[in-house]
Amino acid sequence: MEHDLPPVLSLDIGGTKLAAGVVTFDGLIHGWQITPTRREEGPRPVLARLFDLGRKAVAEAGLPEVAAVGISCGGPLDTATGVLECPPHLPGWIDVPVGPMASEAFGVPYALENDATAAALGEFRYGAGRGTSTMLYLTISTGVGGGSVIGGRLHRGAAGNGGELGHVMVRPGGRRCSCGRLGCLEAYASGTSIAERAREALAAGRASSLSAVELPTAEDVSLAAAAGDPLATEIWDETTWALGSALTDLVNAFEPELVVLGGGVTRSGAMLLDPVRAAVARDAMPPAARAARIEPARLGAGVGVVGAGAVAHDLLLSGKSDA
Amino acid sequence: MEHDLPPVLSLDIGGTKLAAGVVTFDGLIHGWQITPTRREEGPRPVLARLFDLGRKAVAEAGLPEVAAVGISCGGPLDTATGVLECPPHLPGWIDVPVGPMASEAFGVPYALENDATAAALGEFRYGAGRGTSTMLYLTISTGVGGGSVIGGRLHRGAAGNGGELGHVMVRPGGRRCSCGRLGCLEAYASGTSIAERAREALAAGRASSLSAVELPTAEDVSLAAAAGDPLATEIWDETTWALGSALTDLVNAFEPELVVLGGGVTRSGAMLLDPVRAAVARDAMPPAARAARIEPARLGAGVGVVGAGAVAHDLLLSGKSDA
Repeated sequence: MEHDLPPVLSLDIGGTKLAAGVVTFDGLIHGWQITPTRREEGPRPVLARLFDLGRKAVAEAGLPEVAAVGISCGGPLDTATGVLECPPHLPGWIDVPVGPMASEAFGVPYALENDATAAALGEFRYGAGRGTSTMLYLTISTGVGGGSVIGGRLHRGAAGNGGELGHVMVRPGGRRCSCGRLGCLEAYASGTSIAERAREALAAGRASSLSAVELPTAEDVSLAAAAGDPLATEIWDETTWALGSALTDLVNAFEPELVVLGGGVTRSGAMLLDPVRAAVARDAMPPAARAARIEPARLGAGVGVVGAGAVAHDLLLSGKSDA
Repeated sequence: MEHDLPPVLSLDIGGTKLAAGVVTFDGLIHGWQITPTRREEGPRPVLARLFDLGRKAVAEAGLPEVAAVGISCGGPLDTATGVLECPPHLPGWIDVPVGPMASEAFGVPYALENDATAAALGEFRYGAGRGTSTMLYLTISTGVGGGSVIGGRLHRGAAGNGGELGHVMVRPGGRRCSCGRLGCLEAYASGTSIAERAREALAAGRASSLSAVELPTAEDVSLAAAAGDPLATEIWDETTWALGSALTDLVNAFEPELVVLGGGVTRSGAMLLDPVRAAVARDAMPPAARAARIEPARLGAGVGVVGAGAVAHDLLLSGKSDA
């Protein structure tokens, strides 16, 4: 980096937890705080607690004053006006001006970014993507989100939500996705879908070691698959097939140097990465397949806060905060 | 454009025809020449004729000396070394160093670019994409190719072949694509596939007005569909379904302002555009769907030559030709 920039405050609004931290320009988190979201309380009480969390992070970090506040949240949202439109992980939060509210609370300019887009920038600048120029990032978690860095720059897209890499169709007429379409990657590879398919199969009377678990999760499915359970293996194979198919499409369409896979489902490691890498190597156009590495994310649980920090530092770099 | 640049020579190597022309920085073609490729003659005789065609274009254009030569050809190719690797539309042309050969023939630096990538830049700079920042281009012809301009810059991809937008999967386990994978967009929307499906259905005994045509083409199918022929309508609906599905994926993944559709199959006009626009409006993520217009290409038959010219002018702008 050619510049040295002051620290920024990062706020990460998830469906289950809120996080805050002060991020320095080397990508480190200081005074990291986490608390449950309790989204059912509605936007104003939750944001009041989030801003308190931010103040606590600033106090504990004990660093020079923060120069901007970065906010990472699931979309759809409007990066230009700082408004959360109607994020599906925060039901009932309609048109919440979280950016201007944070700016008022902390007296500094804000940058609001789609969580997966911010995470993509975080992994690019500080994680698995360091040194690359064109990189895709997918987070495979409750849903499947993503973002892209192209020619060294975060790609925000014409509507400001960046690329929605989880909504590539893998099976026409297949399972209904949260976006309404049938057969998207998210409808097969998300942790939610993995768990749902297991529960559906058990309810339909399929025999499996998973029947000993009350409400099997995606992690239960991956563990049972690793232990050789036939039903779990079938669900896992469908999951890695869907991811391999969608990544083949994306590698063909973007021709990236690197695809970074993050999110809870990737904790399964080689069980996920190996078949997906094999599918892309076999099915993508040969020059694109040769050029694209597929690697696990490196920032772990801090990716939301680091990503929001990277976005806030971008705001300072762009000079827009002077306006 | 802030600069005024000298004219460049453009060479376009297609599977059925060669074209040459001098392109000025306003995107106009001067001394335009076309001749059959006769690819079976092999690379050296064909390239000798292509370079003669280029000399004829220069002579007829009667403009100041050209400062670079741009070459547009189907990939895979290596833009850095100027080598055609093994383009499927030129069987037997293996590792042909067309860039250095053209540079030697004309005494100026060369830029070799994938034809669809070059066409994307041509449409962006001089055609339907003028004034946009993020644009996808698909050419639906013998095959389905594509290219992307992101943040005002041509996206060349990590392997230099740009995005291969025709190789998004629309039907798992479906028709075999030229790339080897099953069920790509190209395997359903290309003119080759449209004609093949008609011939297969006729050979299987399906009744259709197309049985009166000896070897029905994609155009015959679109005309018969427009006239209400049930078989042709079924094939056409499958074609527009495939294109709508792939464009939904691409609009989700790139969130472009504009998707430009070119190539022979798009001469069918509203019969193609209307159902494809409806599919993207219905199935893409709402912010991405609202942001993305889908428009026909504007450069017509000149797109190959104009695109190669745009690529050669980019070479001059980048200053790489001084090296």
